[in-house]
Amino acid sequence: MVTNSDILAARERIRGIAQITPVLTSRSFNSEAGLEVFFKCENLQLGGAFKIRGAANFVNSLAKEKLRQGVVAFSSGNHAQAVAIAAKRAGTHATVVMPLDAPKAKADATAAYGAHIVRYNRFTEDREALARKVSEETGGETVPPFDHPLIIAGQGTAAAELLEQVTNLDALITPVGGGGLLSGTVIAAKAFNPALRIFGAEPTLANDTFLSFQKGSIVSIPVPETIADGLRAPSPGKLTFPIIQQNVEQIILVTEEEILAAMKFLLVRLKILVEPSGAVPAAAALFRKLPAGIGKVGVILSGGNVDFPLLF
Amino acid sequence: MVTNSDILAARERIRGIAQITPVLTSRSFNSEAGLEVFFKCENLQLGGAFKIRGAANFVNSLAKEKLRQGVVAFSSGNHAQAVAIAAKRAGTHATVVMPLDAPKAKADATAAYGAHIVRYNRFTEDREALARKVSEETGGETVPPFDHPLIIAGQGTAAAELLEQVTNLDALITPVGGGGLLSGTVIAAKAFNPALRIFGAEPTLANDTFLSFQKGSIVSIPVPETIADGLRAPSPGKLTFPIIQQNVEQIILVTEEEILAAMKFLLVRLKILVEPSGAVPAAAALFRKLPAGIGKVGVILSGGNVDFPLLF
Repeated sequence: MVTNSDILAARERIRGIAQITPVLTSRSFNSEAGLEVFFKCENLQLGGAFKIRGAANFVNSLAKEKLRQGVVAFSSGNHAQAVAIAAKRAGTHATVVMPLDAPKAKADATAAYGAHIVRYNRFTEDREALARKVSEETGGETVPPFDHPLIIAGQGTAAAELLEQVTNLDALITPVGGGGLLSGTVIAAKAFNPALRIFGAEPTLANDTFLSFQKGSIVSIPVPETIADGLRAPSPGKLTFPIIQQNVEQIILVTEEEILAAMKFLLVRLKILVEPSGAVPAAAALFRKLPAGIGKVGVILSGGNVDFPLLF
Repeated sequence: MVTNSDILAARERIRGIAQITPVLTSRSFNSEAGLEVFFKCENLQLGGAFKIRGAANFVNSLAKEKLRQGVVAFSSGNHAQAVAIAAKRAGTHATVVMPLDAPKAKADATAAYGAHIVRYNRFTEDREALARKVSEETGGETVPPFDHPLIIAGQGTAAAELLEQVTNLDALITPVGGGGLLSGTVIAAKAFNPALRIFGAEPTLANDTFLSFQKGSIVSIPVPETIADGLRAPSPGKLTFPIIQQNVEQIILVTEEEILAAMKFLLVRLKILVEPSGAVPAAAALFRKLPAGIGKVGVILSGGNVDFPLLF
């Protein structure tokens, strides 16, 4: 059970590591979306994504002796980078197990933060088994990407900040991969105002949470091939899903084309670079997929680590 | 004579129109530049550039009867857009005289704000004569792009804000086109702290202010062909130049390659889109062209309106 006091504790634990990111608005986006949209710019966060919030909360909760043995992560990219940064800041080292096809920008950035990178084939090898092996060999604690109370609480700090930065929001929308950001958002938001309407947004090609939500229990799908590389978890988590199921109004689906159009709009009009995963909830707003009755919505732009062949 | 009270008056006059833009920092940029850099993000400003500050200050100073006749501007782009927005906000209309080769994004945006666009050939026609003709025909006041006390005072509000947002800066650096932003910055900065060191940055291909600074009087160069399309004014202004000459420590030159490298760094690492003109002072910092003895520098990223063929 994760509560708002866990989020408050996380805010203290990550203070001075994670940044308080700015909130941007755009008249042209609002007029296209037909509502007032407030973008929480986690693309401008340390490490280029919200992931440092959960990672730093987890790493900084470890006992000193445990911390000395280093930490391990398995990740498609942003979580890896976040764990590398959090480990470095905590004075320890990280080993990161990363798929061979992870965006080069993310792998480079992770290595640049001093992490040791172990590559694996996402289609033929079991990353969790590999991470367990690394963990056993090094004695380092594995930092889970989403399905852990400390990760959920850490990710919830983004929404907690946003709700202080913008008053009278009617709704919040975040992307959903494993559900860490969305479930943390739910907890922060419901503590702030139980009437807040919470939405998740997912690529149609990675609709595991949508399907789980529909079915009422966790559904796994094959490794999704969406360009939203941060949302390729094949199912929501055992901890995150119940929180989502009980508190989220709807999981909204967007196409690959809508994701790219939202990225381009954010770049050309708002002058900010948002990665495909981060553009997913923006696409939901831009293409007017939110239900009626919402005037002011907070959108968490989860990250900005774009693999450059995509853009240039 | 423009003084700090003109800047204070401008801040009141543009409140609620120009936004208080965020200041961003980047560890990777700092480590590359070898100093602490604070980016004042005027690329995130309304209209995508600082120009709204001067334009709104000028337009909102016009008498009601004069305002009713509309306003006129001649501009390579950002000033045009700013005048269009300022006119619209003031409940009047704008006619904009714009070169045929102005970036399409800027022309489109200006038209989208309801301005009437008159195109001319920058190499064969005299834009000032054309603007005078339009002004005579419509009776509308021409909003000068830089060489006017109200414009200088308006542009100075960016530095005034930055100096409140970041404490203990040693230096400020801005791009120089006609010198409106730099001279306004000088006035705000010297009032705040006379010991602040002020720098201008200019493309080597558009070194009119550098040459004027060297010679001690205004030098005109042929229309420059730099990618920094906002800095193509062939000479500094009669009002702006003396302010620059007396208070600026140095005009720093950067190459076209350095401008593009800075743009790319800002995009890939800071996740923000900055136009070539805006990247000019960032390039000066990134390529370590500032003199020794500076620890904390404020860089005004003047705009983000990139013509997209440049990027994609």
